[in-house]
Amino acid sequence: MKVVILGGAGMVGRKLAERLARDGELGGKAISALTLYDVVPATAPAGARFPVEVMTGDLPAAGECERIVAGRPDVVFHLAAIVSGEAEQDFDKGYRINLEGTQRLLAAIRAAGIHPRVVFTSSIAVFGAPFPEAIPDEYFTTPLTSYGTQKAIGELLLADYTRKGFLDGVGIRLPTICVRPGKPNKAASGFFSNIIREPLAGHEAVLPVSDDVMHWHASPRAAVGFLLRAATIEGDALGPRRNLTMPGLAVTVGEQVAALRAVAGDAVVARIRREPDAFIQGIVAGWPRRFDARRSLALGFEPDASFEAIIRAHVEDELGGKIAA
Amino acid sequence: MKVVILGGAGMVGRKLAERLARDGELGGKAISALTLYDVVPATAPAGARFPVEVMTGDLPAAGECERIVAGRPDVVFHLAAIVSGEAEQDFDKGYRINLEGTQRLLAAIRAAGIHPRVVFTSSIAVFGAPFPEAIPDEYFTTPLTSYGTQKAIGELLLADYTRKGFLDGVGIRLPTICVRPGKPNKAASGFFSNIIREPLAGHEAVLPVSDDVMHWHASPRAAVGFLLRAATIEGDALGPRRNLTMPGLAVTVGEQVAALRAVAGDAVVARIRREPDAFIQGIVAGWPRRFDARRSLALGFEPDASFEAIIRAHVEDELGGKIAA
Repeated sequence: MKVVILGGAGMVGRKLAERLARDGELGGKAISALTLYDVVPATAPAGARFPVEVMTGDLPAAGECERIVAGRPDVVFHLAAIVSGEAEQDFDKGYRINLEGTQRLLAAIRAAGIHPRVVFTSSIAVFGAPFPEAIPDEYFTTPLTSYGTQKAIGELLLADYTRKGFLDGVGIRLPTICVRPGKPNKAASGFFSNIIREPLAGHEAVLPVSDDVMHWHASPRAAVGFLLRAATIEGDALGPRRNLTMPGLAVTVGEQVAALRAVAGDAVVARIRREPDAFIQGIVAGWPRRFDARRSLALGFEPDASFEAIIRAHVEDELGGKIAA
Repeated sequence: MKVVILGGAGMVGRKLAERLARDGELGGKAISALTLYDVVPATAPAGARFPVEVMTGDLPAAGECERIVAGRPDVVFHLAAIVSGEAEQDFDKGYRINLEGTQRLLAAIRAAGIHPRVVFTSSIAVFGAPFPEAIPDEYFTTPLTSYGTQKAIGELLLADYTRKGFLDGVGIRLPTICVRPGKPNKAASGFFSNIIREPLAGHEAVLPVSDDVMHWHASPRAAVGFLLRAATIEGDALGPRRNLTMPGLAVTVGEQVAALRAVAGDAVVARIRREPDAFIQGIVAGWPRRFDARRSLALGFEPDASFEAIIRAHVEDELGGKIAA
């Protein structure tokens, strides 16, 4: 089984590649080759028992997608994207990578006459406020960002190419990834991870919103689990509705803090500094809080067990089991 | 006020142009110029008190959309499309005209730095079965045709360009137009119009489905009314959710026949020949039956009063008031 990961240098792509290297197989079939594609060189995962090719390039450039699918992959994970903030600031770049890149990828697959499973990572950004308290699976997509628009269009194209038999697509709308490893960034959603990751590492973190703010989260581990399930689920189980909201955890900031206290104690929680920020509070007010993701649950996509479990997984995977005293 | 109609040679485009010629104004502002664009030459409406330019061309060809918007229109009606059946048979042509054409039009408007009201005719084909009994305004778009996919993508692009301030878009999902004038065609939906139009003209018509089949209709007059309302409604009344399901009439075939009897009598109804066709019945079973189009009703879009009124309007507009004995 040949696997390609587009966006292989990103956080989720890297973790997916590491998991594939560890498992050596996907859906019971041995992996024979893995290609990691990104705009910067991805790092080949350690210990892979199959050849790993690292490719770099500009996804929508002429001939690029043809080059990517020339190896006739069985599974293509399409995680490559300009992120939300950048796509909003640079309209043309966002459309070029997130829409034209996806269009060219699908067209190249069709032209090659291969019929791979294509796993497309969409986002809860396809939804736009106002929302019902819990967003049902049949809720309409009225994005309030260009990124969300591009993802919603990708979903539609994926479903149509699948319906026409050109490929076998599954789109998954990832929750906000928490705890996101790495440095704090300026994303408006960054604090959801910052207030867990930084205190655990001995650093202070700023919490700009009130404790009752609720959001929809999944750990990096759960996200990789979603990708593997999406790669291996029977297409017939899905029918023509190929895009699924992934099961996250709806937790409030207060519940996040309580979970951190339970896992790491008062001294770690004391590193969270409350500094209300009306601007960020305003942005976050327009985000989804909770989904009723019945369909993906019924299809065997597995959410995190609890926010405490998310924190413990982060401590294991990113901190070698050690919390900063 | 300068107006452009893309798809000006089509049935709805023609009726819209005739109405504009009759009214001489749009939203209280005098029309100073009308451009009718299509792949074949449109017919300029009789009696217009403003200049009418007839343009032909291939919408997505290089430079074409720039040429269309060079006159800096205030209102652009974008009705141009490859129809459902053809877009399904010719995948590339459908995407080229219905998606790339729309993309290029929006991009040309943005590049010209004008901010016209853009009225985009979408379709109830953006929805795909299974459906609830009445489809609510917040229902998701899971099209089961490439045409429906292209229209759903057009809606998303229209909303994003509007949100970014590049133009001022309103998308309207037209019901099935009934009674469609002209000759019977091979569209699976053709019988909804055929069973009214042909008997009124003295011809036999075939009814391939049972009397309990329900569908969502609007007359050509109502469709033109929707277009005018969409052209003149205040954008602020819509907010960022720019795409609206138009208010149709949900009527069964049995109710259509009863209305024909009430308007034209038994002898006309006797020209309907029942010839059940399992294939067409199967296609129609996957179509929407009824919508709960609250939002467009609240926004002042006016549905037909009754199916009898639809038939009477057809007799007036297409038959000069005369029913074939």
